[in-house]
Amino acid sequence: MASATTTETNPAFVLRAVKDLAFEKRSISPLRDPHEVRVHIAQTGICGSDVHYWQRGRIGDFVLSSPIILGHESSGTVVEVGSAVTNLQVGDRVAIEPGVPCRRCDYCRSGSYGLCNDTIFAATPPWDGTLAKYYTVASDYCYKIPDHMDMEEAALVEPVSVAVQICKVADLRANQTVVVFGAGPIGLLAQAVAKASGARKVLAVDISAARLAFAKSFAADGTFVPPKAELGVEPMAHSEEIAGMIKVLFGLGEGADVVLECTGAEPCIQAGIYVAKKGGTYVQAGMGKENVMFPITTACIRALTIKGSIRYSTGCYPSAIQLVASGMIDVKRLITNRFKFEDAEKAFELVKKAEEGVFKVVIEGVR
Amino acid sequence: MASATTTETNPAFVLRAVKDLAFEKRSISPLRDPHEVRVHIAQTGICGSDVHYWQRGRIGDFVLSSPIILGHESSGTVVEVGSAVTNLQVGDRVAIEPGVPCRRCDYCRSGSYGLCNDTIFAATPPWDGTLAKYYTVASDYCYKIPDHMDMEEAALVEPVSVAVQICKVADLRANQTVVVFGAGPIGLLAQAVAKASGARKVLAVDISAARLAFAKSFAADGTFVPPKAELGVEPMAHSEEIAGMIKVLFGLGEGADVVLECTGAEPCIQAGIYVAKKGGTYVQAGMGKENVMFPITTACIRALTIKGSIRYSTGCYPSAIQLVASGMIDVKRLITNRFKFEDAEKAFELVKKAEEGVFKVVIEGVR
Amino acid sequence: MASATTTETNPAFVLRAVKDLAFEKRSISPLRDPHEVRVHIAQTGICGSDVHYWQRGRIGDFVLSSPIILGHESSGTVVEVGSAVTNLQVGDRVAIEPGVPCRRCDYCRSGSYGLCNDTIFAATPPWDGTLAKYYTVASDYCYKIPDHMDMEEAALVEPVSVAVQICKVADLRANQTVVVFGAGPIGLLAQAVAKASGARKVLAVDISAARLAFAKSFAADGTFVPPKAELGVEPMAHSEEIAGMIKVLFGLGEGADVVLECTGAEPCIQAGIYVAKKGGTYVQAGMGKENVMFPITTACIRALTIKGSIRYSTGCYPSAIQLVASGMIDVKRLITNRFKFEDAEKAFELVKKAEEGVFKVVIEGVR
Amino acid sequence: MASATTTETNPAFVLRAVKDLAFEKRSISPLRDPHEVRVHIAQTGICGSDVHYWQRGRIGDFVLSSPIILGHESSGTVVEVGSAVTNLQVGDRVAIEPGVPCRRCDYCRSGSYGLCNDTIFAATPPWDGTLAKYYTVASDYCYKIPDHMDMEEAALVEPVSVAVQICKVADLRANQTVVVFGAGPIGLLAQAVAKASGARKVLAVDISAARLAFAKSFAADGTFVPPKAELGVEPMAHSEEIAGMIKVLFGLGEGADVVLECTGAEPCIQAGIYVAKKGGTYVQAGMGKENVMFPITTACIRALTIKGSIRYSTGCYPSAIQLVASGMIDVKRLITNRFKFEDAEKAFELVKKAEEGVFKVVIEGVR
Repeated sequence: MASATTTETNPAFVLRAVKDLAFEKRSISPLRDPHEVRVHIAQTGICGSDVHYWQRGRIGDFVLSSPIILGHESSGTVVEVGSAVTNLQVGDRVAIEPGVPCRRCDYCRSGSYGLCNDTIFAATPPWDGTLAKYYTVASDYCYKIPDHMDMEEAALVEPVSVAVQICKVADLRANQTVVVFGAGPIGLLAQAVAKASGARKVLAVDISAARLAFAKSFAADGTFVPPKAELGVEPMAHSEEIAGMIKVLFGLGEGADVVLECTGAEPCIQAGIYVAKKGGTYVQAGMGKENVMFPITTACIRALTIKGSIRYSTGCYPSAIQLVASGMIDVKRLITNRFKFEDAEKAFELVKKAEEGVFKVVIEGVR
Repeated sequence: MASATTTETNPAFVLRAVKDLAFEKRSISPLRDPHEVRVHIAQTGICGSDVHYWQRGRIGDFVLSSPIILGHESSGTVVEVGSAVTNLQVGDRVAIEPGVPCRRCDYCRSGSYGLCNDTIFAATPPWDGTLAKYYTVASDYCYKIPDHMDMEEAALVEPVSVAVQICKVADLRANQTVVVFGAGPIGLLAQAVAKASGARKVLAVDISAARLAFAKSFAADGTFVPPKAELGVEPMAHSEEIAGMIKVLFGLGEGADVVLECTGAEPCIQAGIYVAKKGGTYVQAGMGKENVMFPITTACIRALTIKGSIRYSTGCYPSAIQLVASGMIDVKRLITNRFKFEDAEKAFELVKKAEEGVFKVVIEGVR
Repeated sequence: MASATTTETNPAFVLRAVKDLAFEKRSISPLRDPHEVRVHIAQTGICGSDVHYWQRGRIGDFVLSSPIILGHESSGTVVEVGSAVTNLQVGDRVAIEPGVPCRRCDYCRSGSYGLCNDTIFAATPPWDGTLAKYYTVASDYCYKIPDHMDMEEAALVEPVSVAVQICKVADLRANQTVVVFGAGPIGLLAQAVAKASGARKVLAVDISAARLAFAKSFAADGTFVPPKAELGVEPMAHSEEIAGMIKVLFGLGEGADVVLECTGAEPCIQAGIYVAKKGGTYVQAGMGKENVMFPITTACIRALTIKGSIRYSTGCYPSAIQLVASGMIDVKRLITNRFKFEDAEKAFELVKKAEEGVFKVVIEGVR
Repeated sequence: MASATTTETNPAFVLRAVKDLAFEKRSISPLRDPHEVRVHIAQTGICGSDVHYWQRGRIGDFVLSSPIILGHESSGTVVEVGSAVTNLQVGDRVAIEPGVPCRRCDYCRSGSYGLCNDTIFAATPPWDGTLAKYYTVASDYCYKIPDHMDMEEAALVEPVSVAVQICKVADLRANQTVVVFGAGPIGLLAQAVAKASGARKVLAVDISAARLAFAKSFAADGTFVPPKAELGVEPMAHSEEIAGMIKVLFGLGEGADVVLECTGAEPCIQAGIYVAKKGGTYVQAGMGKENVMFPITTACIRALTIKGSIRYSTGCYPSAIQLVASGMIDVKRLITNRFKFEDAEKAFELVKKAEEGVFKVVIEGVR
């Protein structure tokens, strides 16, 4: 196992400016406080947001104004622990939760730390990410993994945790019917978490038949590719029709108990509202256009509960680790491409293309 | 007190077809089952939906295809009780909840009877309403009022119940900050119920300064008339600005704990989403356009809970009666115009005009 | 399939008085209202409460004052439908929910129909039960079963529904740790429902090693037989020790997220409170002594949520049918003894003995 | 305003051992971290737990093994702020929340910081309390008070916060009926908070008619002194009778929606369970005997929710300050006795006597 020495440097994959990637030798800084640990990064998954910063330099209010190290879905081995750390030891293999909140604001104190305005979030400007040899992080945001879980699985605990939070926000209960829009990594994992939570039926909707074939083999009980609108059909009317088809095809009667929207696409959002049954729950997890045309009167009359899901909350990482460790979710099946650290840019280029057959791309850390 | 005799007829105010009102002598039919009571109607408030059916003949899926008696906000005196009735006696003065559900569907059995598809709802096609001398209704949807409450107050228990349900859907807690869009009857009552529930600050937003002046004297702690957008400002950007102004003006910091949207107007819906704090709750109670441009990404990122409120649920009528009976809500201040039964059409004409100074219009029943 | 004719009688197994069982020929009465159906009973499970009425003549406020037909866990085939019935047809195979509430009280109207004071509950004085050839019941309390589910499974949907309600009352979520006291039929099924709801670990506690061996093969991840108290150890102190052992043995740290108490035994209740972690949930489902010595200060300091579970609520029967139909719960493994209708008294004698190896006893209906 | 200088000492009122009080000159230690502030204490209320440590040296697992400064209900003025503090300035007048949690455990991270095992709680061994000239504390556990609120009121924000938490745990909603056992300071404040939250009826039960007279003038709508049991009546039967009397006297029908038990006395706990209606909520806030005889079968059959309340949670202090600042709770009426710092022991002697007329005793800080 590697250990950080004082003369050593920290090789890092850096976004210097929009569309400007480079490898840099960063210095190794001391732990920020006695509760931190230093992790030797083993594997890192790439997420759409990493690519977004690379290509556009901003997501919402987060704007790239100085270079940052990319990457935030990582696993690794603890190589140094602060003096106050009690939950971890040097040598522990861990999954890293990428956002450490302030712990002092009302959001943090009331259990909604994912909403904290002062979170240090890996690879979100101005904070450095995990695509380096070493990463330092608060010890309670590092989770020890069982011996039989490998480092790729541990890196993918991050997207599983996102899916766990989505189902938690949905207040998902056993025996509910669940329609999930999207069969990309988050959609697939949301389907798998829903199924592991005792959902009666999990139904996947996507425009890619190939992704849905995978979804069917992964966790979905049924799948649906929405037909394109016929000429002259008003978009909202088409969305309502799609919802109607889903209800009939899957015997949902008045609609689904729970809808998880993991695409951010306007037609999916609209169809998602229409497919929820009266009194049902709809969770917005995907992000696309800022604003969409929205059937607000239907949402009102049907007394829907519509909630946004973002990041994670307490218990998501432990749940996700349990789901992977127990074999309930075979997260390795999502990994379609693997790269060495020195080929990180190739990995990013691949993700940028957004090809149908590419689910998760992982980058091995510096040995 | 009047009592229905076999030779008597039932004078009724009938919507025969779109824009076709008439007085008719209906026959007095027997109670439908032993749990029903017959009420001699004393006072009836007019609601926007009554006018909507008159002018357009439909609301959503409810279409006028045969004549119906209008009216659904009524009080009266029990003149006949079915053999199985135990909660009421002849002579009891009551407020009438206008929708009686099927009691057998999953919505009814799980406590969401307001969502029942088979509700007999007064003055909703094809069901007759209460603007007649007599109305028959299930005894458990009739609520005895205290002696000191008058029949006008009892008729207005209906809109108070709508407001109670809105606050219940919002899961409103003591010490929260509440922004209410709309200062018409429902908005005003939502403000009053929120205040009576221990809200820290209740803030009213409306385009009418006169209505807001009333709101301030009724229950609101602060009021705001949004300025019109300057030339060239994109509508959604303007809505976001409005939200910003409300936050600053009332010291809401990151936003309101709870937003109650009682107008259905697109700019209010948009500003309402923006004015809610992260993790906050937004309730859609007003109905306007079917579809609106909606800041879905903001709703997602801020992890909002957005809920629709419709009709009532168990406990709304008793709460509303208590709020009126205790003097916490002086509902009579909302009554701006009173009409005799024979002048019902004039009452409808007045409500149709939607003048700023007209809040609630009530029609006295047939003696 | 049998059909009730006017000249036919209804053979019934009747509790005439305490310890006085008899077969009687009852007349076949008409459906009570157009929403009822008549079911030709196929299989009936025996429950402890049936035996209790037989031996003692009362449970709580329910006192046997005139003869009642016994039995309330039944399946059968619909042989007659009332004119208003839309959800069932003659020939449908159904599981019967044994309690039909008044539909009109506040409990019913708010979704807590299991608490209704005016429920017609099979085999609860003064109401007749299902151990007869025919039983009439409200059609919405009859649930059609899939073709591949047999009548024994359908009869056992009743105890599965009890377990579903227990987990619902516990607000059980995926990935929680659950300790279940009791490995009789309800305890075993509570374990199985918890597991099917995504529980991380389900741990069974019972004084019978044989029952626990079954539990381990059924749904439990771990089992524990509490040792007897050593001489001189105060009972409450012993209960606290038992809780400590369970925590250590199963690696529960501060305690279990959820405790389901399905025995009603005083030491289990005490240990159950102690084994719950701070902020955890404890559900009382078993019934034994009216009053027990209870560690109230621990419950207070640990901020526990303690809830009672009784009967069922909307969705329990459909969930239970789904769990059985999907094969997630192999309820037939619980059936240890089968009797013909004419041997019903022998079946009751067997259940009365409460032998370790007897789980569920079922009685076949009259052909 | 005083400011701490390096040569200054910190006069403190110290519990050196059981029944051994003394004044000491402590040194003034530096702030523990840059998020702390130093407060010059102005007023301190005395609580039963302070007296308990003095007389017995322990509460539960907290055992006095070295001297501690007493006191934990305090207000004061900020005299020093750490470099990272942003919410407070020197000169700010504040109410101090006495427990600062670890911020890192699962309880803290999930919003239940009141359950944190590593809380630094004032005057709970081994932590020093606030009965000194200066006290240092995390800045986010200090709450700025409005100019018109005085230092006595600010000290009493602590017990008001306890009451706010009790009502929060009870999930109290507007229009509920609430029975509060106990009319000591916490009971009285629980009554007042319930009333301010829109409770329909707040009913106070206590054995002291004098305290109840005060309760009536403070917030209670009705009061009740339970009669003593007649000779030969079994204690539990008597408790059930008391509950029956309360239901009849106050027209509660089947029982109260919410019961807040603020005494810890066995008969009150028992009567409290019996007085709750089916499906109702009971909160245990008072602490007396470790274990009591408890009607568990009633709790089960009535499907009660029983919860423990301890300390506070996020939002309690702001709510409490708002309730006092707005005049909704006139907390100064509870102050019956005032002492100078040098007379602190006399104050403790008075509280120890637990006389009927003594509600809250406050000690002025060192100038």
